[in-house]
Amino acid sequence: MAEPTKVMCEACQHCGVKQVAQLWCNDCDEGFCEECIKSHQTVKILRHHSIISISNHFKISDISVCQTCLEHNKKLESFCQQHDQLLCLKCIQLNHSKCDNIIGIDDAAKGSKNSAAIFDLDEDIKNLLKNIDQGTVCCFDNGTAINNEEHKIKEKINETRDEINKKLDQLQEMILSDLTAKTENEREKLDEYTEELTKKEKKVKEIREQSSKIKEFASEIQVFVVMKNMQHTVNKEKEMMKLKLNNIPKGLPSLKINSELSNLTKNLKTFGEIYIETHSNPIPFIETKVQQAQLSIKLTSSN
Amino acid sequence: MAEPTKVMCEACQHCGVKQVAQLWCNDCDEGFCEECIKSHQTVKILRHHSIISISNHFKISDISVCQTCLEHNKKLESFCQQHDQLLCLKCIQLNHSKCDNIIGIDDAAKGSKNSAAIFDLDEDIKNLLKNIDQGTVCCFDNGTAINNEEHKIKEKINETRDEINKKLDQLQEMILSDLTAKTENEREKLDEYTEELTKKEKKVKEIREQSSKIKEFASEIQVFVVMKNMQHTVNKEKEMMKLKLNNIPKGLPSLKINSELSNLTKNLKTFGEIYIETHSNPIPFIETKVQQAQLSIKLTSSN
Ligand SMILES: [Zn+2]
Ligand SMILES: [Zn+2]
Ligand SMILES: [Zn+2]
Ligand SMILES: [Zn+2]
Ligand SMILES: [Zn+2]
Ligand SMILES: [Zn+2]
Ligand SMILES: [Zn+2]
Ligand SMILES: [Zn+2]
Repeated sequence: MAEPTKVMCEACQHCGVKQVAQLWCNDCDEGFCEECIKSHQTVKILRHHSIISISNHFKISDISVCQTCLEHNKKLESFCQQHDQLLCLKCIQLNHSKCDNIIGIDDAAKGSKNSAAIFDLDEDIKNLLKNIDQGTVCCFDNGTAINNEEHKIKEKINETRDEINKKLDQLQEMILSDLTAKTENEREKLDEYTEELTKKEKKVKEIREQSSKIKEFASEIQVFVVMKNMQHTVNKEKEMMKLKLNNIPKGLPSLKINSELSNLTKNLKTFGEIYIETHSNPIPFIETKVQQAQLSIKLTSSN
Repeated sequence: MAEPTKVMCEACQHCGVKQVAQLWCNDCDEGFCEECIKSHQTVKILRHHSIISISNHFKISDISVCQTCLEHNKKLESFCQQHDQLLCLKCIQLNHSKCDNIIGIDDAAKGSKNSAAIFDLDEDIKNLLKNIDQGTVCCFDNGTAINNEEHKIKEKINETRDEINKKLDQLQEMILSDLTAKTENEREKLDEYTEELTKKEKKVKEIREQSSKIKEFASEIQVFVVMKNMQHTVNKEKEMMKLKLNNIPKGLPSLKINSELSNLTKNLKTFGEIYIETHSNPIPFIETKVQQAQLSIKLTSSN
């Protein structure tokens, strides 16, 4: 609200005197000085006018208390109880010509500061604020619920991922230990085979050693006899070796990835779906218990 | 080989003399001193006996040069060229009675130190060692191949897992950003709604403020007029608020995990399969070019 400017006494101004107004007549809608208000109040028909201090006037000066019919630009002087509506003369002529309960605004306004209508208005305002508050609290709760759900969903996603990781870790460990076992088995076959070859080599090299010594130091008959035996042994070893060379362990490990897994990386399109679900907990609107109706009836019946 | 003990001269021992043998007759299978070997060599039928030093005797003493038929425990004295076999008298009677080419072991052994047979035996031994070596090399190569394949498979498993992780990371990021977008949208609805309520509250509180000022400071007619207007405004606000309370944004995010993923943790049994594949690269056996056959033919034809 802007700082109110000074208001001058209209009555004094009429007499060419400049005097700051200390008071305000709500009914005349004019400011008065202390002197002029005295003469204002000596007039009988003005005696019941509502006089307030200038400072109080400023407190309500921003509230529209226009007593003019906005439609016909005439003073609102009457009230139709039937239509609960303020009327100018034109209003009466045009729209309320057949209404019974039209009274003067003075009568209608009588006691309105303490009327049931104003009590109802206060109640309505109070309840309206309660309803707004209900809505605000509900919004806050819904916001909290969204955050909670969001948090839960994130946790669920992480848990699901952890489970998948755990599962894949398990399966990976399984296949790796299977790989180790199977390759180890193949390596053992090769080791056994190589060990046999090493023994055989040692044996054949011994024969070669003996053969060369025999040739050097033994008699021809000895050489002949030994050579016959050796050739026999060597022939057997040759045959065995021929078979053995066809049976070298040739196993190589090979991998077939589970097609469910390879399809996964190709075909999986989503981790899942986020959808918005509407939960419905309707908020009961707080209604005002109407006293106006009773008043209306009272007014109507008393008319 | 154990350290050889001293060998005594058998001939000297016959005469009651103890004399260490310096020489050995392979044919008599006895030790002789330097003196006694001289008289041994004066005898015509012993003159071609194979005489070696005692030290050389020990070098071949561990090689079986048994000239006794193991079946009949008689001396091997003959050789059947047809069966390529050393024979005792009993062998000839029992199994080679009809064989033509039986000769004395002395004749058969003649030149055997430089025979094709001994050359073939050497070749056979050499090739046998080559074949053993081929086998050993092949085993080593196969071992290396197994290790390489094992390494590749481990890498492939890790790569596959990395791909799955990358894919899941992507999808996880996608669903999380979807979650954020959708919850953010719901929160915005709530924010807008709350903002409207705040404005409405401010408006209603202003009306309440005005109502109390008017009651305090205005005239009854002013109160009546303003109250009528206010009630009108409040009624409109009430109706709007009634509708509004039914339209509080109530969206909550919800998650549906892709069933392919939830099935994964339940149903996936393996990461894949390790199987052993046999690769076949046969090793050609190295054969000895036989010279013995030619010798055999020579011997047969010269007989
Ligand atoms: Zn005055
Ligand atoms: Zn007045
Ligand atoms: Zn009018
Ligand atoms: Zn009317
Ligand atoms: Zn002697
Ligand atoms: Zn001799
Ligand atoms: Zn025999
Ligand atoms: Zn024969």
